Amino acid sequence: MPREITAFSNPLIKSVRDLRDKRHRREQRRFLAEGLRILTEAREAGRLPVLLFFAAASADHPLVRTLVTEVERAGGDAIETTPDILSKLSGKDNPQAVVGVFDEFETRLNDLDRTAAGIWLVAERLRDPGNMGTILRTGDAVGAGGLILIGDCVDPFSVEAVRASMGALFTIPVVRTEWATFLTWLRTGPGQLVGLSLDTEHDYRGARYAAPTFLLTGNEAQGMPSGYAAGCDLLVKIPMLGKADSLNAAVATAVMAYEVLAQQRD
Amino acid sequence: MPREITAFSNPLIKSVRDLRDKRHRREQRRFLAEGLRILTEAREAGRLPVLLFFAAASADHPLVRTLVTEVERAGGDAIETTPDILSKLSGKDNPQAVVGVFDEFETRLNDLDRTAAGIWLVAERLRDPGNMGTILRTGDAVGAGGLILIGDCVDPFSVEAVRASMGALFTIPVVRTEWATFLTWLRTGPGQLVGLSLDTEHDYRGARYAAPTFLLTGNEAQGMPSGYAAGCDLLVKIPMLGKADSLNAAVATAVMAYEVLAQQRD
Repeated sequence: MPREITAFSNPLIKSVRDLRDKRHRREQRRFLAEGLRILTEAREAGRLPVLLFFAAASADHPLVRTLVTEVERAGGDAIETTPDILSKLSGKDNPQAVVGVFDEFETRLNDLDRTAAGIWLVAERLRDPGNMGTILRTGDAVGAGGLILIGDCVDPFSVEAVRASMGALFTIPVVRTEWATFLTWLRTGPGQLVGLSLDTEHDYRGARYAAPTFLLTGNEAQGMPSGYAAGCDLLVKIPMLGKADSLNAAVATAVMAYEVLAQQRD
Repeated sequence: MPREITAFSNPLIKSVRDLRDKRHRREQRRFLAEGLRILTEAREAGRLPVLLFFAAASADHPLVRTLVTEVERAGGDAIETTPDILSKLSGKDNPQAVVGVFDEFETRLNDLDRTAAGIWLVAERLRDPGNMGTILRTGDAVGAGGLILIGDCVDPFSVEAVRASMGALFTIPVVRTEWATFLTWLRTGPGQLVGLSLDTEHDYRGARYAAPTFLLTGNEAQGMPSGYAAGCDLLVKIPMLGKADSLNAAVATAVMAYEVLAQQRD
């Protein structure tokens, strides 16, 4: 049976609300995900929250009931609370029906089976949580094997990244590593490392991408360091016909990933 | 000569700060743009702010000096102010060097020359300002003739949209209109209306796009209404191989737009 919390002062409420902050996520090794759609994606991917908050008004929704049942069966805690407290937890005036607290999970490079997918996404020093989530969402759509994060990237477990991923955080393996470690791992097996760059004459449509292709996207403001470019098997550029000299990082990743997908499906 | 404002209580500062709010933008018919890069893009596109705020520390930057000279030559006001006030105007702790206040501008459907570009972007009920700006930025990159907004879209002059556009708001015409008006205008001349949809068997890579192609992207959560789909010449879908059933709206628009561009360049 779900228990009830109706007091803002409850210490559990404070500790959950703290998960909006990176430092607290690191300490608790937990993160927040909001909304019935995303929590249902998570459940279907085999990830259940350790804490599930919902309001009385949504308690009878069949997907909420399924979540409550499965969370409790897995030893988690399903907690009925007030709309005000849900607002406080989600930081939004109009909270979605449910908020889940998940244990952080991690995938290591050596856990990846590179032959399982034709496309792998690699991002270095990605700074924007919206871009992080959107790249995960695109990765899911193109059937990418995972997202490999290089260097000092924004936290993929931040509330904004989880939201923008629309649940893909739960379906796509995410690895956090460093450039040298990644490159060493990459060279122990098959795989073509393709970097997006402005300093090349190779149009992205003219190149050929063999599976598995690892697509490297650099930092939003600076692109990738020249040393990284030197480590790539191929640099390609996306044509820019206007005044601006670059695309949004998530957009550039998606344009590339769909070109690779189209070639590999042919 | 630039004048100086150092008091938070100055009524001009309040009226500029108010421009972060949609209601005040509508009343004043002005909007904010921040950052030397975006303001320089605007200047190069022939758009100068009526008010330009900068801090003493950046007064000697050559691009700031050019902006000050041109703003004053055009009858605008260049105002030196404190870092604190710049923070207040930009809503950020670490404000970029300059903040500009621009008169709103508008393009009407009948001002567009549809034969001037092979690609036109059309978005209906776009709700997210980041998506709005990113679609403008992509539009610039693919050489789109303009962005046509249908129905109740987020304000393209919001601070977040201007920022995400990276200056493309100043280089790409934006038209705000209604569906019936748009469709009537469209049918008075050449142009293929292509809608992104989940309810079609046509893969976007298999279709052929003749110039001018008008690419219609629907609302982030709901896609386009079925009546709009019926008005399209062609519906296409982007393959979704994962768990999710849709892409981010700006990503989907970009994947489509680059496919059209690739075909039209061949």
